[in-house]
Amino acid sequence: MTPEALTPERILEATEDVLRRYGPAKATVVDVARALGVSHGSVYRHFRTKAALREAVTERWLQRTVDELAEITGGSQRPAPEKLRQWLSALFEAKRRKAGADPELFETFGVLIGGNSTVVEEHIAELVGQLSEIVEEGVQAHEFVPVEPQGAARAVFDATTRFHDPAYAPEWSKPGIDAEFAAVADLCLRGLTARPADESAG
Amino acid sequence: MTPEALTPERILEATEDVLRRYGPAKATVVDVARALGVSHGSVYRHFRTKAALREAVTERWLQRTVDELAEITGGSQRPAPEKLRQWLSALFEAKRRKAGADPELFETFGVLIGGNSTVVEEHIAELVGQLSEIVEEGVQAHEFVPVEPQGAARAVFDATTRFHDPAYAPEWSKPGIDAEFAAVADLCLRGLTARPADESAG
Repeated sequence: MTPEALTPERILEATEDVLRRYGPAKATVVDVARALGVSHGSVYRHFRTKAALREAVTERWLQRTVDELAEITGGSQRPAPEKLRQWLSALFEAKRRKAGADPELFETFGVLIGGNSTVVEEHIAELVGQLSEIVEEGVQAHEFVPVEPQGAARAVFDATTRFHDPAYAPEWSKPGIDAEFAAVADLCLRGLTARPADESAG
Repeated sequence: MTPEALTPERILEATEDVLRRYGPAKATVVDVARALGVSHGSVYRHFRTKAALREAVTERWLQRTVDELAEITGGSQRPAPEKLRQWLSALFEAKRRKAGADPELFETFGVLIGGNSTVVEEHIAELVGQLSEIVEEGVQAHEFVPVEPQGAARAVFDATTRFHDPAYAPEWSKPGIDAEFAAVADLCLRGLTARPADESAG
């Protein structure tokens, strides 16, 4: 590849391949450059350090899930409760798919993510931000009770931890996990859509 | 100590001390016997293997939390929603106290527990069983909506994972964690106490 054809995206693709093949401990910038047929100087021109390259590839990996979920968040056809349930299912499915289809890469990113709490915090903030938009829509449409969207979104995200935190990946293939997920999603939905028994009795 | 005075409880106390001092990798039955001033044969008369002794000491450690929570579960003075909230807070507090007051021992038991999934499953079943009793009380008193108690209890337990699973212990000292806990507990409580908006509108 000529240095001119070398884009950040091509470098990140190659980095992901290299990480998949060698694992996070052994993968080097030289491996990435070799896979692309360029000098390591060309790679460093786009990513100034190995740490910067690793951060970028991790962000890109997490961003795929964010983008996928954004399509649900941005869709305006359906009621908020239904959208919220679909979003939570899609998050669980996306994480489970990543963990199941390519366990080595999933573990590799687990290691990279473990070493960079800022990237994780930003990722979680983006996801909670999307949830918050859905909650706000529902509150405005009177489909949800009047909650503070950001706080309620965070509570729903926390309540579904078992179904998106990679630490639980080994449990995602167990029988019964889908029913457990549905029960927690139901509980959250009821918590957001329902009025206190006292009020309905009045 | 004479062999006659040696009870299982004394052995388990000593084992906990030895584990605290040497850690799970180094602690031996001989250390336990030495701490008690008896022969290791006397210890083996009560616990036939090192594995059996470790399992018993782990169960005892987990049982303390179960017993503490059973007092809330068994109390009959208060309404179920209040009891449920108190129970969830007490579980979070008990785990956090164990993690904070004696981090080495907490980590030690984390290692022992990691090697014995049956003990963990039984512990979780006991906790969910207690929660289930509270949910059932609330359903019978019409304080909760008519849910299947065991399933609803499991959903509440899963939804509060972040606040009792030892894997999250490092987050329990962060500022804001109490507010996050309260928000998730609120969401669960609303999910159990509230009727769907549709019904209340009818």
